[in-house]
Amino acid sequence: MKAFKTIAPALALLALPSLGMAQEAEAAAAPDINPYIFTTLLFLIGGFLVFWMAAGFAMLEAGLVRSKNVTMQLTKNIALFSIAAIMYWLVGFNLMYPGEWLVEGWLGPFFAITSLEPVGLAAADASLDYASVGSDFFFQLMFCATTASIVSGTLAERIKLWPFLIFVVVLTGFIYPIEASWQWGGGFLSEMGFSDFAGSTLVHAAGGFAALAGALVLGPRLGKYSADGKIMPIPGSNLALATLGTFILWLGWFGFNGGSQLAAGTVGDVTDVSRIFSNTNMAAASGAVAALILTQVMYKKPDLTMVLNGALAGLVSITAEPLMPTLFGALWIGAIGGIIVVFTVPMLDRMKIDDVVGAIPVHLIAGVWGTLAVPFYNDGTSFVTQIIGIVAIGAFVFIVSLIVWFILKAIMGIRVTEEEEINGLDMAELGMEAYPEFSKG
Amino acid sequence: MKAFKTIAPALALLALPSLGMAQEAEAAAAPDINPYIFTTLLFLIGGFLVFWMAAGFAMLEAGLVRSKNVTMQLTKNIALFSIAAIMYWLVGFNLMYPGEWLVEGWLGPFFAITSLEPVGLAAADASLDYASVGSDFFFQLMFCATTASIVSGTLAERIKLWPFLIFVVVLTGFIYPIEASWQWGGGFLSEMGFSDFAGSTLVHAAGGFAALAGALVLGPRLGKYSADGKIMPIPGSNLALATLGTFILWLGWFGFNGGSQLAAGTVGDVTDVSRIFSNTNMAAASGAVAALILTQVMYKKPDLTMVLNGALAGLVSITAEPLMPTLFGALWIGAIGGIIVVFTVPMLDRMKIDDVVGAIPVHLIAGVWGTLAVPFYNDGTSFVTQIIGIVAIGAFVFIVSLIVWFILKAIMGIRVTEEEEINGLDMAELGMEAYPEFSKG
Amino acid sequence: MKAFKTIAPALALLALPSLGMAQEAEAAAAPDINPYIFTTLLFLIGGFLVFWMAAGFAMLEAGLVRSKNVTMQLTKNIALFSIAAIMYWLVGFNLMYPGEWLVEGWLGPFFAITSLEPVGLAAADASLDYASVGSDFFFQLMFCATTASIVSGTLAERIKLWPFLIFVVVLTGFIYPIEASWQWGGGFLSEMGFSDFAGSTLVHAAGGFAALAGALVLGPRLGKYSADGKIMPIPGSNLALATLGTFILWLGWFGFNGGSQLAAGTVGDVTDVSRIFSNTNMAAASGAVAALILTQVMYKKPDLTMVLNGALAGLVSITAEPLMPTLFGALWIGAIGGIIVVFTVPMLDRMKIDDVVGAIPVHLIAGVWGTLAVPFYNDGTSFVTQIIGIVAIGAFVFIVSLIVWFILKAIMGIRVTEEEEINGLDMAELGMEAYPEFSKG
Repeated sequence: MKAFKTIAPALALLALPSLGMAQEAEAAAAPDINPYIFTTLLFLIGGFLVFWMAAGFAMLEAGLVRSKNVTMQLTKNIALFSIAAIMYWLVGFNLMYPGEWLVEGWLGPFFAITSLEPVGLAAADASLDYASVGSDFFFQLMFCATTASIVSGTLAERIKLWPFLIFVVVLTGFIYPIEASWQWGGGFLSEMGFSDFAGSTLVHAAGGFAALAGALVLGPRLGKYSADGKIMPIPGSNLALATLGTFILWLGWFGFNGGSQLAAGTVGDVTDVSRIFSNTNMAAASGAVAALILTQVMYKKPDLTMVLNGALAGLVSITAEPLMPTLFGALWIGAIGGIIVVFTVPMLDRMKIDDVVGAIPVHLIAGVWGTLAVPFYNDGTSFVTQIIGIVAIGAFVFIVSLIVWFILKAIMGIRVTEEEEINGLDMAELGMEAYPEFSKG
Repeated sequence: MKAFKTIAPALALLALPSLGMAQEAEAAAAPDINPYIFTTLLFLIGGFLVFWMAAGFAMLEAGLVRSKNVTMQLTKNIALFSIAAIMYWLVGFNLMYPGEWLVEGWLGPFFAITSLEPVGLAAADASLDYASVGSDFFFQLMFCATTASIVSGTLAERIKLWPFLIFVVVLTGFIYPIEASWQWGGGFLSEMGFSDFAGSTLVHAAGGFAALAGALVLGPRLGKYSADGKIMPIPGSNLALATLGTFILWLGWFGFNGGSQLAAGTVGDVTDVSRIFSNTNMAAASGAVAALILTQVMYKKPDLTMVLNGALAGLVSITAEPLMPTLFGALWIGAIGGIIVVFTVPMLDRMKIDDVVGAIPVHLIAGVWGTLAVPFYNDGTSFVTQIIGIVAIGAFVFIVSLIVWFILKAIMGIRVTEEEEINGLDMAELGMEAYPEFSKG
Repeated sequence: MKAFKTIAPALALLALPSLGMAQEAEAAAAPDINPYIFTTLLFLIGGFLVFWMAAGFAMLEAGLVRSKNVTMQLTKNIALFSIAAIMYWLVGFNLMYPGEWLVEGWLGPFFAITSLEPVGLAAADASLDYASVGSDFFFQLMFCATTASIVSGTLAERIKLWPFLIFVVVLTGFIYPIEASWQWGGGFLSEMGFSDFAGSTLVHAAGGFAALAGALVLGPRLGKYSADGKIMPIPGSNLALATLGTFILWLGWFGFNGGSQLAAGTVGDVTDVSRIFSNTNMAAASGAVAALILTQVMYKKPDLTMVLNGALAGLVSITAEPLMPTLFGALWIGAIGGIIVVFTVPMLDRMKIDDVVGAIPVHLIAGVWGTLAVPFYNDGTSFVTQIIGIVAIGAFVFIVSLIVWFILKAIMGIRVTEEEEINGLDMAELGMEAYPEFSKG
């Protein structure tokens, strides 16, 4: 997303013309309302596509955990999205776009409740150069939820439900909105010239840093790393679901990146959205092909989970700049994303950081890569500024997350007991199996 | 949907100006065709999203039945949608919007076949203040099919295929179009001031009443209620599918409620659609969170199926009025929907009404709740009128459905034999297993 | 798609007015940019819906193969889409729309790399009577990928991964673009009056012919046809996935057929898109109902896989002309598609052509049927021309595919060993099971 773009209309909204002024304006010449409608539709369509990514994460993660933990993973995913929807309304949206959107609520200016336009808004009262606040809120909310979705996969199969959900409250209400405001809320990173079009760093790496902090505090799953240093593969229970999840995410990403153009009312904007769709698709495809070929070469057997994560890494990589690259640019940026996954998944394992679904390679490492790649195609950016942005966001998210995880660990514990982990979280915490008729034993 | 809105363009279509008139009009001033295009696109996009809900119901129900009945549940779902598509064209659409749309077919005015605009419609011949008939038909058809989808879940695991499908013929061709015409066809409920924006009662409660009538005639599944009064839990076979189905329904609901604005060509309309999207999402989220917290408090273990049904109940609750409430309004209306589910699912069981997927709590009871909640945010409505509407539709749908179920029972029987039920409907009626390699025994 | 439509704007793009000219034109009167935006949005929305069909094929095929081959089928599906995305960019798009789009790349005019418009295109430089090249490319690419998706199902459970993917390279880079250019690139078939609106023959029958050639060279699965001439049923492992895949394809088809109107900026065009949506839905519904009734009558038991394939055959049948027929026309054209499937699936088996998912009946035979049905509702077409088109495309695709398959067989072999086939391709070629905790044995 272009920095500041969400700020300008906010100011316009504050300075609503009086009814008399509006009538005068209309007498002069009817304003063109079509750009407002087009951009609002872009946010609504983009928003429902990004919503759909929540289902993608749920399916991907449910497919990559063992069947004894599937119900829990599904519960976490639908719960985290729901919590994000509430927290982003209650706190996040106002915190991310500070000042302008604040509506004094019963809890004072800090816990200010997001308020949308009145029903049947008159054209004269609308930010005709942008879009409806309702559509913008709907769209932005989905990005906040996506950040939380990234965390759940890494920490699967061993974290307790409620501490995880409390972390989601903090992440979606505070951590994400604060760091995102540095760029998209017109904060210091945007002033510095940092560039992250749709959130390779702001969303994906940020989610990855929160996940990494959690993984370090939580420790690996039992049996993942044997005493003699061996890494034990723990295969996912349903690769069809994992593939479905990947396709859902790929589809949703057209909304994620395309909607981040934040405008669709001019020839230039809608043509740019077309570029973004084409580049996003290309980066996913090249990420998948790169992982396919590389796993064939390295292991003599292609690895489907690597191909899936390769496609996702391609998507994450292009997210920082899906507009400016040529299709060939999208190809190589995405391919490097796919290659990163193949190399960093085993690297994390060697470091005994247990990331169940590979979210850290896909979202954090490929997200950093994508953010660093921006200057190759965007002349107005620099590697130095990109690095500063990554470090600022990474340090903030990682440190705050680490603190929150430690507090949660101290207060209520974040990990299930050994027995519960062996029996599976589904029976232990939920008393309900995902596949009661199929599972072994 | 706003009552009457679909009537006006119909009249306009009947009074098509002659070609000469059209040319004169064009000479005067080119009319603005953009609102027509925007609203048509709203119906097409909204329509394909609501179509997608058919897949959502199929997955939700396939996930909540036992594996021995999955093939049957899938068959019923794809068949009921297909039958609805044909019946709504053959009878329903004309019956729902009486008079105006009738096209004399080979079977006389009653079985009048729906006819769309000619190919390449000229702007002068279009209802420029509304949308294309084709898009309206496509959109409305999906609501009819949704009503039928609700029924299949309740009656799963014991009803025979063909009697069920015959009921669908009656429901989608006659019952739904007649009761829906009372409101959306400009009938007595709309004249009285009843308000049901997108169909909490007209679609969801109506489907729930038809399901309730069926459940009473059909009786519970074998083994669900033991002789000594115990309620036996019968877990669903695939909670990943059920969760996928819920996410699909959630996504489709943006089209269901958003498209029901029935207009997208002005600043006010598209801003209203944005409100609707945001409120719809909020109600689903709060319904899910309410069910999550409540099951934790009541049973000490969160229940994923309750969370899923809580989200759906939140969606059903906001459907009667997704536009006027604030986001906080959507939050508490949806949360009460979620709470309703947690309390009424066991209540139905105590009444020995066996509702396999919880469709009656979700669609009927939360649908009634949502309809009753309208006056809290819509000044032009009253609780009395809302109750009259619910009672009129409920009584009509329930009684006619009961009669149809009794007739079907008398003529052909509606329930499989005990042996078939024990062996599963898949092998008994279809000779085909859904998961031939996985199932036990 | 209407022939030539993609050519005109290409010429316009080549003849870009100079900046001075553009400014003069603007001074005279601001051009209406809305049709350009609407059509671009049609391509983007239609394109992401057709993208979604890739997920549909993946789920359908994963559901219809045995669990020991599911990982492989998923791998093939995500890989073939990714390869199509790259090949269509590298070669296909330029080959399909010869001349105009060529951009001299480092590999000369033949391997000309597709290039999109510059970022922030000015209205004066756009093909205002069409849409952005980026959106057109994105949309067309999905059709190319669909052609390849059709092949993977037929050849499942016995073909090696890499030879299959090499065939996809040839199919998506050369075979499809060449035959599609004969019609949509303004080639001899379009000049002759051949009509295939969205590709019953150009996409579906073409994919089917490529699959047929492969099936003949590859031979049937072990155990499918016993020595004494019996046909052994080999049930799919997951009918819930197969049904999900069918619903996904049905949804995607609204984009496939609707987007092929190639215009959405006038009343006539958007009303036509509405007709297409309604007809597409009707044909799918009638295909499903026809197969349901017919299997009940013929076998006394409805067959879900036939119902699914019936819906798909209805969709393929209406694809050659989804605009001109009445809804009743769509009904009977789709129903015949469904009937074709029920009769031709066993017919293929009697010919010992082993088509794992029924792709040849659905895509090839129903595709031919749909193409032949065009003249019933489109006066400007003739049966003779339609037959010539089918024969030309069928012969070209079949013969070239046959040659490619034979070359691949000679060079590297295309079939796994007997032992690998018995053990399943997942363990043999990938070393990874799709459902490691569920499968028997």
